[in-house]
Amino acid sequence: MRKKILFAPFAALMALSPLLAQQSPEKAHPGPATIVDAAPADDWKTISARDLLVMNLAPDATGQTRRVIIQLMPPPFSQGWIDNIRKLAATKFWDGTSINRVQDNYVVQWGDAGYDNPESGAIAQKKLPEDLATIPESAYEVTVAQYDQFMENEKRAADPGYRQWEERDPYSEYAQFLEGWPIASSGDGDEARLWPVHCYGTVGVGRNMSPDTGTGAELYAVIGRAPRHLDRNIAVVGRVIEGIEHLSSLRRGKGQLGFYADAEKRVPIRSIRMGDSLPEAEQPQFEYLDSMSTTFAKYTDARANRRDPFFITPAGGADICNIPVPVRRVKGDE
Amino acid sequence: MRKKILFAPFAALMALSPLLAQQSPEKAHPGPATIVDAAPADDWKTISARDLLVMNLAPDATGQTRRVIIQLMPPPFSQGWIDNIRKLAATKFWDGTSINRVQDNYVVQWGDAGYDNPESGAIAQKKLPEDLATIPESAYEVTVAQYDQFMENEKRAADPGYRQWEERDPYSEYAQFLEGWPIASSGDGDEARLWPVHCYGTVGVGRNMSPDTGTGAELYAVIGRAPRHLDRNIAVVGRVIEGIEHLSSLRRGKGQLGFYADAEKRVPIRSIRMGDSLPEAEQPQFEYLDSMSTTFAKYTDARANRRDPFFITPAGGADICNIPVPVRRVKGDE
Repeated sequence: MRKKILFAPFAALMALSPLLAQQSPEKAHPGPATIVDAAPADDWKTISARDLLVMNLAPDATGQTRRVIIQLMPPPFSQGWIDNIRKLAATKFWDGTSINRVQDNYVVQWGDAGYDNPESGAIAQKKLPEDLATIPESAYEVTVAQYDQFMENEKRAADPGYRQWEERDPYSEYAQFLEGWPIASSGDGDEARLWPVHCYGTVGVGRNMSPDTGTGAELYAVIGRAPRHLDRNIAVVGRVIEGIEHLSSLRRGKGQLGFYADAEKRVPIRSIRMGDSLPEAEQPQFEYLDSMSTTFAKYTDARANRRDPFFITPAGGADICNIPVPVRRVKGDE
Repeated sequence: MRKKILFAPFAALMALSPLLAQQSPEKAHPGPATIVDAAPADDWKTISARDLLVMNLAPDATGQTRRVIIQLMPPPFSQGWIDNIRKLAATKFWDGTSINRVQDNYVVQWGDAGYDNPESGAIAQKKLPEDLATIPESAYEVTVAQYDQFMENEKRAADPGYRQWEERDPYSEYAQFLEGWPIASSGDGDEARLWPVHCYGTVGVGRNMSPDTGTGAELYAVIGRAPRHLDRNIAVVGRVIEGIEHLSSLRRGKGQLGFYADAEKRVPIRSIRMGDSLPEAEQPQFEYLDSMSTTFAKYTDARANRRDPFFITPAGGADICNIPVPVRRVKGDE
């Protein structure tokens, strides 16, 4: 089972394991991995192939295929950019573009780099589809009205098992999980605003200076510490749920900001497609652990209070980015 | 100047830059990078070569040399393990060992793996020096008495520029910078305890199950989200200040916990030496930005409240691991 659990868990569940390789029994206090492994089937929710972005890179030097799968955010978050991304994938915009930037402990960036961008050098610019929407900066946040559909979840967030760490988010008044995504918020009542946060694996939209918000044609994935200072300053559209190692282990760019000064170093992107545009048999299927489930509550508590055998001092809290939402593949090859 | 600023800054200062490559003037509100670049010479403190661990890996596939430089922690933190590390380097213990584990978004681990370690496979075990000390778990923390020498710094931490984010550390009551290191603390008066935290680039000591605390012969470096749950559960002995990309971009291990299932994949370690054991001319010299300096106070404020041109919404706070201490090389080649 654990072998089938990916993304967050592949980092998270492993992160729970002793730094030495030897596994240990967890009789008295099951660790987060054990808790997730024991989740009943009903606690897992399907991720629609319609919400998956499948990126195929050119094979690596050893001929290994490199596929990265991104889950796009659900409504009401960032849907304007995500609509653009669906159009870009449908028109095969990214095919033949490349990964142009790999900056250690920050981001891997790919796709369009057509705007005034000296460090990016002669990156071929492709013509953008003409029907892409321009999204306002106000869309970096979501209002309470847009968020009403999640209210039940917000009540659930009053659970002490959550609050112990939510209340200490340095970047917001309140951080929680909604529909399986880490979401920060500030304000009360009608003044309340919510926004998705930047964690390891988060996918966002490159942009030019304000008021530009980016089209979605240039995307980045976080490969280092959570750059939470980007929250509400750039659109967050998804997260890598499989194959992030194909991005995070790329050679770092030696140009400004980690751009590849040598165009030869750029990694060719063979194709990027929406999951539901692939032949039925090739459509990867994933599930995430329902963030309203009892299992998730136990998981967050275990992440914040490690009592499994390797640990001697539970932290008593956790950074929301250090509570990755369990995601697992349920069909298809890795 | 910026080119000379490394480690944290190489990630941090870059992280402050727009996601697009174009740089912008920062007239009204200088960004963290600009603030650090403007620091007077007196705000920089020398890092002694005696506190540097210089690791030379085998060249990569393209023949590129790979050197990683680690700064060891100052007293009173983790000195028992660090004394062992000095002995291990003096006896050339690590020469001929290897990097045995690379787990995405977690750690790169090297050196001794001689204890019962099924996943590590047939990793050659070298005989440990016989005079290594066994360090008690109590040494994961430091008492107020041991910490007295830092009290002036603690007072300084009352500066509002610090408190805005210190008070919201999910993993401690209070987080701050001491002598250029991120330190968490809990308790008051004689009950207060302080401990170093796990951030990107942090170097720690692999261990077996409690009460084992590790000798220092097996080390790891963090290459992903800050695994703060390890604080006070494993010894933190230093941080990578140059060349972390030689660790973070290594191919991920496919075995359990990211160990290389195929021994051929392990990365040979040619040598690990103390900086002061190298010929005078080869001793790298670094400086860190004094965490009690006015420049550092401005830097932390700017990290927590981005007002430079790219940003539209300052966070109003920052994770202590997202305020990397500026370190720069002042002599020798990178």
